Amino acid sequence: MAIDLNSDVGESFGNWTFGDDAGIIASVSSANVACGFHAGDPTGIRATCAAAAAAGVTVGAHPGYRDLAGFGRRFIDVDPVELTDDVVYQIGALQALARAAGTSVRYVKPHGALYNTIAVHERQARAVVRAVREVDDALPLLVLPGTVIEAEARAAGLRTVVEAFADRAYLPDGALVSRRDPGAVLHAEPDVVEHVLRIATDGEVVAIDGSRIRIAAESICVHGDTPGAVAMAAAVRRALVSAGVDVGAFA
Amino acid sequence: MAIDLNSDVGESFGNWTFGDDAGIIASVSSANVACGFHAGDPTGIRATCAAAAAAGVTVGAHPGYRDLAGFGRRFIDVDPVELTDDVVYQIGALQALARAAGTSVRYVKPHGALYNTIAVHERQARAVVRAVREVDDALPLLVLPGTVIEAEARAAGLRTVVEAFADRAYLPDGALVSRRDPGAVLHAEPDVVEHVLRIATDGEVVAIDGSRIRIAAESICVHGDTPGAVAMAAAVRRALVSAGVDVGAFA
Amino acid sequence: MAIDLNSDVGESFGNWTFGDDAGIIASVSSANVACGFHAGDPTGIRATCAAAAAAGVTVGAHPGYRDLAGFGRRFIDVDPVELTDDVVYQIGALQALARAAGTSVRYVKPHGALYNTIAVHERQARAVVRAVREVDDALPLLVLPGTVIEAEARAAGLRTVVEAFADRAYLPDGALVSRRDPGAVLHAEPDVVEHVLRIATDGEVVAIDGSRIRIAAESICVHGDTPGAVAMAAAVRRALVSAGVDVGAFA
Amino acid sequence: MAIDLNSDVGESFGNWTFGDDAGIIASVSSANVACGFHAGDPTGIRATCAAAAAAGVTVGAHPGYRDLAGFGRRFIDVDPVELTDDVVYQIGALQALARAAGTSVRYVKPHGALYNTIAVHERQARAVVRAVREVDDALPLLVLPGTVIEAEARAAGLRTVVEAFADRAYLPDGALVSRRDPGAVLHAEPDVVEHVLRIATDGEVVAIDGSRIRIAAESICVHGDTPGAVAMAAAVRRALVSAGVDVGAFA
Repeated sequence: MAIDLNSDVGESFGNWTFGDDAGIIASVSSANVACGFHAGDPTGIRATCAAAAAAGVTVGAHPGYRDLAGFGRRFIDVDPVELTDDVVYQIGALQALARAAGTSVRYVKPHGALYNTIAVHERQARAVVRAVREVDDALPLLVLPGTVIEAEARAAGLRTVVEAFADRAYLPDGALVSRRDPGAVLHAEPDVVEHVLRIATDGEVVAIDGSRIRIAAESICVHGDTPGAVAMAAAVRRALVSAGVDVGAFA
Repeated sequence: MAIDLNSDVGESFGNWTFGDDAGIIASVSSANVACGFHAGDPTGIRATCAAAAAAGVTVGAHPGYRDLAGFGRRFIDVDPVELTDDVVYQIGALQALARAAGTSVRYVKPHGALYNTIAVHERQARAVVRAVREVDDALPLLVLPGTVIEAEARAAGLRTVVEAFADRAYLPDGALVSRRDPGAVLHAEPDVVEHVLRIATDGEVVAIDGSRIRIAAESICVHGDTPGAVAMAAAVRRALVSAGVDVGAFA
Repeated sequence: MAIDLNSDVGESFGNWTFGDDAGIIASVSSANVACGFHAGDPTGIRATCAAAAAAGVTVGAHPGYRDLAGFGRRFIDVDPVELTDDVVYQIGALQALARAAGTSVRYVKPHGALYNTIAVHERQARAVVRAVREVDDALPLLVLPGTVIEAEARAAGLRTVVEAFADRAYLPDGALVSRRDPGAVLHAEPDVVEHVLRIATDGEVVAIDGSRIRIAAESICVHGDTPGAVAMAAAVRRALVSAGVDVGAFA
Repeated sequence: MAIDLNSDVGESFGNWTFGDDAGIIASVSSANVACGFHAGDPTGIRATCAAAAAAGVTVGAHPGYRDLAGFGRRFIDVDPVELTDDVVYQIGALQALARAAGTSVRYVKPHGALYNTIAVHERQARAVVRAVREVDDALPLLVLPGTVIEAEARAAGLRTVVEAFADRAYLPDGALVSRRDPGAVLHAEPDVVEHVLRIATDGEVVAIDGSRIRIAAESICVHGDTPGAVAMAAAVRRALVSAGVDVGAFA
């Protein structure tokens, strides 16, 4: 049994820090590194790549909308042609900084509103797929199962890697409970640990209505930006290791 | 006899256009493509790379200070560590877009205030050298002869390519006449053509005081952003070809 | 008979110029001045205000989404609270520059995607209304008739000023023909002039199907960013004056 | 006896927080509020103004260079005309947000590298003076004594308010010890408190060589962005009040 743990890092900007990258990198196997459009200045990005390299953690590109003020969390109705080029630009920039830091970019996971949008928005999903293929068609894409981006990426011949979320509740149909609804986020460590173990060892989750659903995730996303995030990530890793699950990068 | 002609392109941004890239690319052999920090949005950068590729023109990286409002023409007292990473980021981004456009980045020429600063500012010059080496130590750097950046780049083992300016007057010591002084810029086509031919065929320029000075330039910079720039570049190229000089990229 | 002519100006940014502000200001009575978020740097904004003041043209605020790369032409799903503050910020900045240029801000007309969005999007429309009221509830708002923003502004006690478009075709229900459909934009000067005269003198337009519809516009928008825009604006003004219509600001 | 305490606030940006504004506002009498160019998004700026208003703390404008990535801490060689307009823009934007929050802008204190530059750089100092006069020539300017900006502001008829620094060591000539030199910053609370009391009650400081120098400060700057900053500000205020010094805004 093996699973990847991924988390968003490198999201500081200039004088502003965000999250505890060192703390999170100590527990995950894959680091989704910001690329400068929603967060991440070059020196911070590089330092995060170096920290990942030192910890044996795989680096992935975490491109977002060009929106520092909104942290990439607001939908922008970008023209697909421009979105492709924005993503190519961001991955290329990260590739150079990763190489300078002694590592390389091994996968892509879009950020925030872009991630959410390409789950349902065909034109933007295709734009992202095109960008990844143009940069390197061997780069896998982290996706939510059953989404438009998963289908588009597969149809285009990209490898997709399904991820689950360590602290999110699921609907019976396998979708995430909306953050606007009660119970959407698991806060208690035992709940999160049980949820993660079930995904990693049984390939299933207990949905919010108590039903069991199959979920074949190769990676589990742990959040890095909430209070207690570092301790939670460490607890998740410990629980997986104790249960005999190998925590290791998929890429 | 052979010489390269280079010019700055790709300096539009979003809805704002700047210069006539297609017109300039028709005459030069090397295109210094903006990388997004002083000018250049990803789609425009890529289109410029594609136009260069289609015309058989070599693409170079044209990184600048992070200053869209100032078009990279204002000195910024950037920390050298951050400057290195800013330049790595920009070159990497351009590399990815150039590849997507069917070409590649073959040299580096810093832009505007950064170009002027590294001619004299040791710490920023070293920062730029470090960036180029970290990205690819086979990339040559276009430099003004006799500058700090030329010395630092050579000391670090980078190839330097000396450039001259098609429309700038020279002092007897080989430095450029300051733009604040009278006669700094040659405006008449015959003057520019004579100046360029002398550089390309005799390896010398007539300085502003009438003295002759040696200048071993492998490339001549023609401006793309002035009225009549396209016609001037075309005239320069025609004159060189008529004089039996091969116009071709150095990289 | 009297009518206002308005146009978007001040949309250059740093080294990039956009449109011919001086040419347009010579023909209009109201200048919608960019406020820095979608376009407009402080020095350019101020120069535009000074030119308007010198020509006796009224200055209005033209706030947009924070999106230089997209020129404010892309919908952004901004939180309404943040949108209100973004608009307050922009109007305040313009007020200070207008005063420094010897004039003042007399009305508000949102830009681009924000203008289009608040025609139909209740929460963003209310956010804009709130911003205008917080800055100065005596500032009128330029609106398309029959839109959500018109209703929200009136309900909140703001003065609304209905505008028509000099070069846009209308549907029988008074809406604009979509730019994606054929015939959406009038290009020939005689067509534009006839259209404008009918609005100003008869209070009606001939819709794309030939039917006549009432339109009680106090202002007509002429575009400043198309080839021939300056000549078209001048022709429109001349035709109005010849027909005995006073061209003058509504504010 | 009376003194003002001022501190920099409102320097968060979008999703990134910076400092503990509420904590600092509880102790100071004047809040230098960021204006969006080096830090501060409109919603955060407004919230800070509202917090200051609720606490009876005076709001001042804290304009900086346009440099989010550098937090306004890097010198930029801005053209003075553009600098004036950049400062007018920032103050105007803050004025509108302050009014919306139920307060108003009562003074100006430039930020970071701009503050340091105008202490010695005549053209940029004059540009800032021009900006303040154009916005409102009754606005006082917080200055370091003996600087170019103090002289230029006075010569132009602006009121200048001298400030001292709570945690900075002084040279015998009244200048600050450079941050690059040992002992530049006082870290221990008793040292800071003694230093502040001496300024407020005796109008003098003990310089780094032990000599006493006169300093007629109307305001003392306490930092808000260091660990323990809130506790230090509170200790300074308590000590002043205990010593019978009124802590109150100068404006």
